[in-house]
Amino acid sequence: MPTEATFLPVLRRIATDPAARGLLDDVAVIGDLVLTHDSIAEGIHYFPTDPPASVGWKLAAVNLSDLAAKGAEPVAALLSLTLSGDGEWENGFLEGLAAACESYDLPLVGGDTIALPAGAPRVLGLTAIGRTAAPAPPRFGGKPGDELWLAGTVGDSAAGLALLARDPASAGVLVDIYRRPVPLLAAGRVLAPVASAMMDVSDGLLIDVGRLAQASGCGAAIDLEALPLSSAFVAERGGGTPERLFAATGGDDYALLAALPPGTDPATLSLPDAARLTRIGVLTADEGLTLADRQGPVPLPERLGHEHRTA
Amino acid sequence: MPTEATFLPVLRRIATDPAARGLLDDVAVIGDLVLTHDSIAEGIHYFPTDPPASVGWKLAAVNLSDLAAKGAEPVAALLSLTLSGDGEWENGFLEGLAAACESYDLPLVGGDTIALPAGAPRVLGLTAIGRTAAPAPPRFGGKPGDELWLAGTVGDSAAGLALLARDPASAGVLVDIYRRPVPLLAAGRVLAPVASAMMDVSDGLLIDVGRLAQASGCGAAIDLEALPLSSAFVAERGGGTPERLFAATGGDDYALLAALPPGTDPATLSLPDAARLTRIGVLTADEGLTLADRQGPVPLPERLGHEHRTA
Repeated sequence: MPTEATFLPVLRRIATDPAARGLLDDVAVIGDLVLTHDSIAEGIHYFPTDPPASVGWKLAAVNLSDLAAKGAEPVAALLSLTLSGDGEWENGFLEGLAAACESYDLPLVGGDTIALPAGAPRVLGLTAIGRTAAPAPPRFGGKPGDELWLAGTVGDSAAGLALLARDPASAGVLVDIYRRPVPLLAAGRVLAPVASAMMDVSDGLLIDVGRLAQASGCGAAIDLEALPLSSAFVAERGGGTPERLFAATGGDDYALLAALPPGTDPATLSLPDAARLTRIGVLTADEGLTLADRQGPVPLPERLGHEHRTA
Repeated sequence: MPTEATFLPVLRRIATDPAARGLLDDVAVIGDLVLTHDSIAEGIHYFPTDPPASVGWKLAAVNLSDLAAKGAEPVAALLSLTLSGDGEWENGFLEGLAAACESYDLPLVGGDTIALPAGAPRVLGLTAIGRTAAPAPPRFGGKPGDELWLAGTVGDSAAGLALLARDPASAGVLVDIYRRPVPLLAAGRVLAPVASAMMDVSDGLLIDVGRLAQASGCGAAIDLEALPLSSAFVAERGGGTPERLFAATGGDDYALLAALPPGTDPATLSLPDAARLTRIGVLTADEGLTLADRQGPVPLPERLGHEHRTA
């Protein structure tokens, strides 16, 4: 199976505009607007048995999370809707999408609706546009010595997904977080002006830290003990090193990962009360990713996250 | 099978922003930017046997045609690419997309690449952003008495498609036009400042005239004799009323349909030499669509175009 990397040479050939940021960022930048597009496919990014409203919510939330990672205010969205089946699913999907759009003030301004061949898995896409007050921090702006901070927690969504895989009727906080992730827009707006690099954690913390570090020409050292875990996560799975590695590779977190200049004191930032900001590591001059827990170095797991699962 | 209309109530609920133009237009407008998104699905909008480069070209061209219909200059695009199969198809697709992007100065600035379940039909989407010098003419701005003008010809693409349906190895001008439509960007820029309403003809001239008229609260009278047909079309199919009805309902034309104030003289516009501008009818105070040829009124065909075939 080819991956996105297979096509990067030809994609880069048509992505020479500065707005493309060399396709190294999660968004494009046109003036004070940032633009992002995420798509999700039935059977890949969500279960056909997932409540359709949660799929609609999630499509909006993953795009809003990309705006959050650039400190942008939501401006507008365009929906790519495919029709396959009886329309009842689509109605539920749109109700969930509408709920997220209303919650985060993201008006739908256009898009396209197309039919699919009978039985084809649905593919749903959203283009979200946001406006930034300060220059959007790129993924590639980190410097050796910058401290890596995380807004939000990791692992909840992967733990919720694991519960659903065991029993599709599972419920509770972790399942809710998997189904209705919350984009950290307020935290993103506060962090963006001080971050040298920022992105949202969608494919797994370790794979995304690796991407931020590599794009910045750095390495990264992560302190597994410092990873912010929710009490629901710890109650369900525990908080030892294996569980922390699970949380760091699970994906679908929509936490924000920011590289901040050394010594930045989060107490000086006007973070929303609910924002949980945790220092989890540092960017290094040596390339590559290293992990440690209180016993010392921890070998990298074979899988750092999802190459293409999440949008 | 539900259609887009089924979902318009909930779509409109989340489309209250003025930028959405009530979802009555083909584009959203944010400041001097216009934004459009079109998707195409394998087996619906193109044949699996179509050359992949032509599919890539067409995806760019249909979006550029939406920009043309608002008089916009291309600024940037975001691609939604799905991976299904061996990657050879995608390489060809991207080569065609790159060719169109280079031809019309549309830099790719971002997007998303996702995997599909094995064997799933591909769904490919593009969000195109353009910039307008004058306010973008909406679809709904026509007034009774406005004359309907067409830039470009109709029927060529449908005739090409019919040739391919008979023999997938067909070649020639009509097949080329079906596979590699040309967005009429220069004509659109000239017409936009003087048009009271404008849109591109993608689903069939009659269905699209009906949409422009209805959105404008008008009816329309179309003179079939006036329809601009290419010499290739006439050579292949003839130029009588049945053939004109075929041309007027075939779709995939990417001609521009403009409502111009009565008496507008195209000779006073600085149209590009290659632009073919033809007066084909008029907007009426009475709602509904009427057709005539030199013998008099012609009944409306049962099918005015494609409800959802084209992007």
